[in-house]
Amino acid sequence: MKFDTADAACLERILTWRRDVRHFLTDPVPEDLIDRLTTAMAFAPSVGNARPWRVIRVEDPGLRAAIRANFEEANRDAAGAYDDADRAEYLRLKLAGLDAAPVHLAVFTETAPEAGRGLGRRTMPETLMQSTAMAIHTLWLAARAENLGLGMVSILDPKAVEALFAVPPGWRFSAYLCLGWPAFTDDTPLLHRAHWQENAPTRWERR
Amino acid sequence: MKFDTADAACLERILTWRRDVRHFLTDPVPEDLIDRLTTAMAFAPSVGNARPWRVIRVEDPGLRAAIRANFEEANRDAAGAYDDADRAEYLRLKLAGLDAAPVHLAVFTETAPEAGRGLGRRTMPETLMQSTAMAIHTLWLAARAENLGLGMVSILDPKAVEALFAVPPGWRFSAYLCLGWPAFTDDTPLLHRAHWQENAPTRWERR
Repeated sequence: MKFDTADAACLERILTWRRDVRHFLTDPVPEDLIDRLTTAMAFAPSVGNARPWRVIRVEDPGLRAAIRANFEEANRDAAGAYDDADRAEYLRLKLAGLDAAPVHLAVFTETAPEAGRGLGRRTMPETLMQSTAMAIHTLWLAARAENLGLGMVSILDPKAVEALFAVPPGWRFSAYLCLGWPAFTDDTPLLHRAHWQENAPTRWERR
Repeated sequence: MKFDTADAACLERILTWRRDVRHFLTDPVPEDLIDRLTTAMAFAPSVGNARPWRVIRVEDPGLRAAIRANFEEANRDAAGAYDDADRAEYLRLKLAGLDAAPVHLAVFTETAPEAGRGLGRRTMPETLMQSTAMAIHTLWLAARAENLGLGMVSILDPKAVEALFAVPPGWRFSAYLCLGWPAFTDDTPLLHRAHWQENAPTRWERR
């Protein structure tokens, strides 16, 4: 397999136009599209080929309401930790699309998977959580290439989410994802546009 | 920005043909290519737009030798933890390309970055490590689209790596990456081909 400059340019466009989406339309996402995203997610790298991510698609209105309440409490606490000027700014930001996104996914990591037979994670068990993060990123890019938007919600009490879904003891909450059609597209992060945190340069040091 | 079916197919090919590469040619990687990868990595999602990944490009032969010794010790320990049959199988696997890869990158996470002003990580500080994992995955895909290979090495003592590079106290070791021209390309993980861990199905549950 050989990739050409058009392929590299295509990936660059997908990377550039991928956003953490919090503004969704309520239109449903066709099931065949969700099937394609499920397939894409399985291509993510994973330590020992363990594929430790566990995805619960949340449709029950009671579960969704509990997640919204969890977010609202965690967000209020987070706002309370800022000084007055920052708090006012923080409260103007929209930080989750839980209100409108048609598809909700709770993503967990199996921290003691049989798959992989322990390979690659003896000294660094966090590689399992890294694998799940890369799987979420895979889903993010695949969604973008289908003109869908994805938003990752981490302003949640993870222990309360694990209790809410009564997950097996080895599962650790990784993120709650909102998926749907974005209300607008953008090549610049919302936190940069809103002057919360500009795109800071990243540098590689040489030694 | 609207993506079409050719774009989605392009991403699917990149995802399918991305591998954890351990077999490298020793040919050098042109600097302009490394610059493009550096730029691509900055497009990764990050909590609060904090971009907490820190990359050290390792060229010093002494540092490289110390990493190889660290890997060999951790790998010997890991092998020792298996029973005889599994150990023989484990020792037949090539698990790192440290011998031939022309570019070595030590990747760390800044766990208390000023950037982002704490947004999104109050209840889940692990979002910073997730951001670094997604940045590594971004680099992985960008490398693949340039016909380069990347291998992620986690069979290392992370504390020893942090000490070796004398990183600031807030930095946590995330992964050591080997980058270069792959000796061969493949659409199937080596651990699947070698019968260590087949590609197990991943399912989404509905609630």
